[in-house]
Amino acid sequence: MTGKTIQLDHGSGGLASQQLIAEVFLKHLDSPTLHSLEDSAVLANQPGRLAFTTDSYVVDPIFFPGGDIVKLAVHGTINDLAMRGARPYCLSLGLILEEGLELDELEKVIISISEACREAGVAIVTGDTKVVPRGKADKIFINTSGIGFIDDNIDISAKNAKEGDIVILSGTMGDHGITIMTRQAGIAVEGKLASDTMPLHRLVATLLKEIPEAVHVLRDPTRGGVATTLNEVAGNCGLGIELREEFLPVRPEVRAACELLGLEPLYLANEGKCLVIVAAEEATRALQIIKGCQEGREAAIIGELVAGKPGRVIINTPVGGARVVTPLHGIPLPRIC
Amino acid sequence: MTGKTIQLDHGSGGLASQQLIAEVFLKHLDSPTLHSLEDSAVLANQPGRLAFTTDSYVVDPIFFPGGDIVKLAVHGTINDLAMRGARPYCLSLGLILEEGLELDELEKVIISISEACREAGVAIVTGDTKVVPRGKADKIFINTSGIGFIDDNIDISAKNAKEGDIVILSGTMGDHGITIMTRQAGIAVEGKLASDTMPLHRLVATLLKEIPEAVHVLRDPTRGGVATTLNEVAGNCGLGIELREEFLPVRPEVRAACELLGLEPLYLANEGKCLVIVAAEEATRALQIIKGCQEGREAAIIGELVAGKPGRVIINTPVGGARVVTPLHGIPLPRIC
Repeated sequence: MTGKTIQLDHGSGGLASQQLIAEVFLKHLDSPTLHSLEDSAVLANQPGRLAFTTDSYVVDPIFFPGGDIVKLAVHGTINDLAMRGARPYCLSLGLILEEGLELDELEKVIISISEACREAGVAIVTGDTKVVPRGKADKIFINTSGIGFIDDNIDISAKNAKEGDIVILSGTMGDHGITIMTRQAGIAVEGKLASDTMPLHRLVATLLKEIPEAVHVLRDPTRGGVATTLNEVAGNCGLGIELREEFLPVRPEVRAACELLGLEPLYLANEGKCLVIVAAEEATRALQIIKGCQEGREAAIIGELVAGKPGRVIINTPVGGARVVTPLHGIPLPRIC
Repeated sequence: MTGKTIQLDHGSGGLASQQLIAEVFLKHLDSPTLHSLEDSAVLANQPGRLAFTTDSYVVDPIFFPGGDIVKLAVHGTINDLAMRGARPYCLSLGLILEEGLELDELEKVIISISEACREAGVAIVTGDTKVVPRGKADKIFINTSGIGFIDDNIDISAKNAKEGDIVILSGTMGDHGITIMTRQAGIAVEGKLASDTMPLHRLVATLLKEIPEAVHVLRDPTRGGVATTLNEVAGNCGLGIELREEFLPVRPEVRAACELLGLEPLYLANEGKCLVIVAAEEATRALQIIKGCQEGREAAIIGELVAGKPGRVIINTPVGGARVVTPLHGIPLPRIC
């Protein structure tokens, strides 16, 4: 299909749509359920409670160091399921394409999504494609929704955080956010910046297998970063969270780029990290388990849950100072995911 | 929020996002699961096989006679589940908003979606909102995904059609398609045109309760219309489908507008109709049941499955002629849903 572009007819539901589905989508996505091309996918039920999540992706640019829009989508949806302790089961793919998009570029995206699904072991089982006239979208927007199942002994929720619980971050902060923002700004920085986009369901499964009761909260600090996510958790459980500034893991090149752009890594999006809030007595074990996983080698304990400061996040500095960390506000960071 | 507009900050994941969620979304959408604001909705599992579907909606204009973009989304996703014989269980809502969209307009959309959910008895349990800069989308794009459950005795699929089966259409053709196209073209036509957007899960449930084994195929003829949908069914089951032209139900005002625009109602999108393919011996009973439902009062038997013409749809005219009905091709009908 070299040199060809997406036409309005590809979204009409007629022959051109069927051709696009056969020659691009089904060529690379191999789920037999998807290939049945019915109005809904039909799948075997699984034991456990149901987890359901949705996310749209509008990141600009669509290809960037460390990933692309569909890797973000697959990983983001898998991670949202994993953050409730669910085993991801299947994904949907909704595409909105701009007339004039190169078919080669679309095929590159579909190949990438098939790689991401294969690596994660989670298939796309149902999909939909719409086309809008030139100038009414920007190349490609993606929605992935996902279904997972949660074992009966697992109960993960922000409201479950308890006084004394320990906060672990599974790796460095800000890698995804700063990569996209320096690209958008056209700024070249020292060192190699790359998105951290990565599925975390295997790390979560390992953790929940080893210490199912000790894990109280799991959250992936995407838009709004660690600062905003922890504020949400603090608000939800009615406790305070104290962080130790010197414990926060940030790559030197990310810190340098942040200083250049006047940004704070605590507010930058991450796409392959999770915050794990665990019972204090199992914190060391939890850190060991996380660091033992490929995805969590750079994990660190970054703080703890405290009484007396309900709903607030406080950061303690090495020189004995303390400041309140508010949620992200007033900083428009468009199309970061 | 009168007079205010969507800003990039509303998609940042920070305070402005939280405010939008609280003041617009949660104000009108009342699912307790949605209100928990976790990364995934967690729900009780249900008996039966799982059905899963996704659809994006980019219709232009977003409000039109008989409905709007979110009514289409809720009904479309419910109908895709119903077309496999599933009981719709829950929905997700993914919004892509253009910077500058009036907040009043967004609230109108959210009120409409809450009405559609209430009427259908299916809740939105999880959601996501992204904002793109002005000119990078067109007001609002929506994705709805949905989960349903299928009773073990139900097996609905295009491949199940059998020779001699009867094709019933649950009402008139083309109402949605012609309503949108005359609006897009700015053409005023005689008579009142309105979209037929409507959820069909109750009609399907009634049918499957009465004659579960006799119903072989259910399809909603949306994009590409009855012609394209029946071609897909014929291709899938390897039989031919013969239609009787004089049996095809079309409103006079739809026919008149089609003649004016040079369009064929067989190719126009429907958003509240289904094709029901049933065993011949239960066809009369099926028609009675469908006509007994509010959604199917104008249902008609329109044709039958035949051997000898594998994969083809043939239309027989009252004067004894016959012509092949091909799938939709070469007619760009943009943003019809």
